[in-house]
Amino acid sequence: MTAEEARRRFADARVARLATADAEGRPHVVPIAFAVAGDTVYHAVDAKPKRTTRLRRLANAAANPRVALLADHYDDADWEALWWVRGDGRARVLDTAAEEAVGAVDLLVERYAQYRDARPAGPVLAVDVARWSGWSAARAA
Amino acid sequence: MTAEEARRRFADARVARLATADAEGRPHVVPIAFAVAGDTVYHAVDAKPKRTTRLRRLANAAANPRVALLADHYDDADWEALWWVRGDGRARVLDTAAEEAVGAVDLLVERYAQYRDARPAGPVLAVDVARWSGWSAARAA
Repeated sequence: MTAEEARRRFADARVARLATADAEGRPHVVPIAFAVAGDTVYHAVDAKPKRTTRLRRLANAAANPRVALLADHYDDADWEALWWVRGDGRARVLDTAAEEAVGAVDLLVERYAQYRDARPAGPVLAVDVARWSGWSAARAA
Repeated sequence: MTAEEARRRFADARVARLATADAEGRPHVVPIAFAVAGDTVYHAVDAKPKRTTRLRRLANAAANPRVALLADHYDDADWEALWWVRGDGRARVLDTAAEEAVGAVDLLVERYAQYRDARPAGPVLAVDVARWSGWSAARAA
């Protein structure tokens, strides 16, 4: 799969998984809502309670900016339809008030109806993807 | 969510995401088919071509056994239905001929119809989960 096709499939997905690692290399992974602008993926921490783990993704990204993002399609009945795409890049944690963060949240609000009633108020994670890659079971895809 | 509930939801899921990191702490994440026995999660590398990235998950697990596994539910129309569960643990790469690996592949074949026609022939990854955790949007779940 070409990088452009991987980027396109990623940008069209509704959910992705964000893999980070702490300074000691211990991995962490969570599902995220996101929006893509060019080769940058934005995710905002919303207002839902996430207890003690709620900022691990941000703490990890601050300690170790190398992150990986995954979007995939699974179909239990048809493994020929499976695909995944990954973006490897570097993360930046944006201050909520930063112009880039405000623009990112605007994109998220536009993309997810749920954010219209509850605009994400937490810090914004920006991931500058350096490499898009992917795999599709259907070799022609 | 209790650890037992997180383990149960994970075991019932059909696809999970495996997050690993290399020796330098660079994260990697792929979707996986899996089977659970107690607190151990098994995944086998099957016969599909995966090009140059095909063994990164195994190389990472060998270099840095700390891994994280995620299963989640996403519903674009109903964010009250969202949940995720995570298993943090340590990975072991099993030789294909090892008794534990053969038993793991038996579990996978039993669980996925697709493996009946094409029994996974590659190395088996065993993850001994030390901590199950999870989050559910529906606070009562």
